[in-house]
Amino acid sequence: MKFEISNLFLAVLLSGMCILCPGAMVGLPGSSAYAAEKDLPSWKDGATRTRIVRFVKAVSDKRSKDYVAPADRVAVFDNDGTLWCEKPIYPQFIFALDRVQSVVDERPELGNEPLFKSALSKDFDALAKSGAHGIQRLIGVTHGGMTSDKFDEIVANWMVSSKHPRFKRPFNKCVYKPMLELLEYLRKNQFSTYIVSGGGRDFMRPWAGATYGIGREQVVGSSCKLEYKDGDVFRTETIAVLNDGKEKPVGIQCQIGKRPIAAFGNSDGDLEMLMWTDAKDKKRKGPSLCALVRHTDMDREYSYDKDSKVGRLDKALKEARERNWLVVDMKEDWLKIFPFE
Amino acid sequence: MKFEISNLFLAVLLSGMCILCPGAMVGLPGSSAYAAEKDLPSWKDGATRTRIVRFVKAVSDKRSKDYVAPADRVAVFDNDGTLWCEKPIYPQFIFALDRVQSVVDERPELGNEPLFKSALSKDFDALAKSGAHGIQRLIGVTHGGMTSDKFDEIVANWMVSSKHPRFKRPFNKCVYKPMLELLEYLRKNQFSTYIVSGGGRDFMRPWAGATYGIGREQVVGSSCKLEYKDGDVFRTETIAVLNDGKEKPVGIQCQIGKRPIAAFGNSDGDLEMLMWTDAKDKKRKGPSLCALVRHTDMDREYSYDKDSKVGRLDKALKEARERNWLVVDMKEDWLKIFPFE
Repeated sequence: MKFEISNLFLAVLLSGMCILCPGAMVGLPGSSAYAAEKDLPSWKDGATRTRIVRFVKAVSDKRSKDYVAPADRVAVFDNDGTLWCEKPIYPQFIFALDRVQSVVDERPELGNEPLFKSALSKDFDALAKSGAHGIQRLIGVTHGGMTSDKFDEIVANWMVSSKHPRFKRPFNKCVYKPMLELLEYLRKNQFSTYIVSGGGRDFMRPWAGATYGIGREQVVGSSCKLEYKDGDVFRTETIAVLNDGKEKPVGIQCQIGKRPIAAFGNSDGDLEMLMWTDAKDKKRKGPSLCALVRHTDMDREYSYDKDSKVGRLDKALKEARERNWLVVDMKEDWLKIFPFE
Repeated sequence: MKFEISNLFLAVLLSGMCILCPGAMVGLPGSSAYAAEKDLPSWKDGATRTRIVRFVKAVSDKRSKDYVAPADRVAVFDNDGTLWCEKPIYPQFIFALDRVQSVVDERPELGNEPLFKSALSKDFDALAKSGAHGIQRLIGVTHGGMTSDKFDEIVANWMVSSKHPRFKRPFNKCVYKPMLELLEYLRKNQFSTYIVSGGGRDFMRPWAGATYGIGREQVVGSSCKLEYKDGDVFRTETIAVLNDGKEKPVGIQCQIGKRPIAAFGNSDGDLEMLMWTDAKDKKRKGPSLCALVRHTDMDREYSYDKDSKVGRLDKALKEARERNWLVVDMKEDWLKIFPFE
């Protein structure tokens, strides 16, 4: 798609429109008159926002020593806890639990299994005791056994009817406004924006476009094994990739094929993705921006880090301090957290 | 990226530039004044070209019943035999053979293995006898054991120094001019163009951009298992995906996440991708264009189909006739085959 953009940009320039209609340049990517600050209104005017803006300006300015061609302006974002609220429990896990009744209706024999009994009664202690094997089976059964198109429809329907237990809104309304502004700001500066999440790739695709402006092909995530049969693509119950930790750089290499120049995460599961984006010790050429979002606002959202089961942040924070990564403090740096505030 | 395009397009419209500078519309995607025929000069004026142009116009015209939003205009292309010459032998296999000496220099013990001895002496009969296991090992060893960045560099260097045995030019110069024009024509009409090949994803990425205008993230292909360690992504010798036949729709679903509306192939390995793109029996909504390229020109290229080991075309051709897919006859439909003619 980059080729079209540059063709279009060239067409605009060659046609002489810029001279005839200078006002038209307002809002065009890469314009030096572009007022970045107006695009990040939910970010407090301070060191954090300044660092983001300086980075974006440096890589977008052809005269800068840190200039990066648009095709290489790849920015990756974790989803749970970085773009949307992951507390009190991962939304995808709530989706799985909400799916159990339909699955048992279709396959009544599952209703006799202790795992599915616990899921139906939302007995979280029993579910936790079922271990990784139990959770993977629950995810496999609730996410598999249908065509990709059908799963898309199931997720889309659930998303409009879902409710965050505290904020009483669908989960994809409980997304961080400053991050939405950042995504848009990056795209205006000709970045490609990708989700790189431990969450399910196909769980995110149906709503990532409308919610974040991120296309289906720009979602990297965990996945089940797919099979082509009877003229259609089917989802199996076998988990193929758990896109977390070391698998995040691998997932990026597989799907995007380029090392990002910007990465945003919020937990230890994002550490390797951030290290690979930074990779100072590998003498990577050119600039990069690595950032952690810290959950510090108990009143407006949640406050958690190293003692948390969901979104544990410990090693990555230590590394951030040593490597001078950007640490975004939600309480201090964000004027607004949610669009509905 | 689509969002940027439409924002830009909107900015152009709102600024009134179209009224002040009507000439500026020439060359803009979707313009009705756009002369498609000028873009496909190597295609003979006839039924084949007409069908392609009609399809593209129908899906791009907002007033058409077959209109498809730009974000859904996904076109997929096989590579070997569809975009570049695959005869007398797959270029990637020549790359593997050319790599054997370097590999044996680094790991002398391999030089004692019959498989690598056969490879060094280019004893094709012995290599054929080593079977699928032997060939996979040869590919694994020559394509694995280094970082992704290093492999990129190796492929890029080989590509500039490689020579097609008959055409005496690098393999990425032995690409089909009509297909290059078609890719460009589709992108001008706001299609996204992807390679979906049985060839190696990471073998194609280093040169697909300059050769085809297809970005690294738009290459779907076979791949080895990757591992993140020591701050970098490494290639193992284990083949993870053989992106052929039934795996092509699966690969598209994984990486692109959308069913294409146009697919071009040339062999039985493309059948499932074409079926899924067409999928008449599944009552897929909207139009699609499925096409096979037939190698019919012994003088200018090669002539082969059902009796060929490389690029066997038999089942897919039968299906094409039953389903009224477009069959491109290279001898009849293409005025030029290679850019160097």
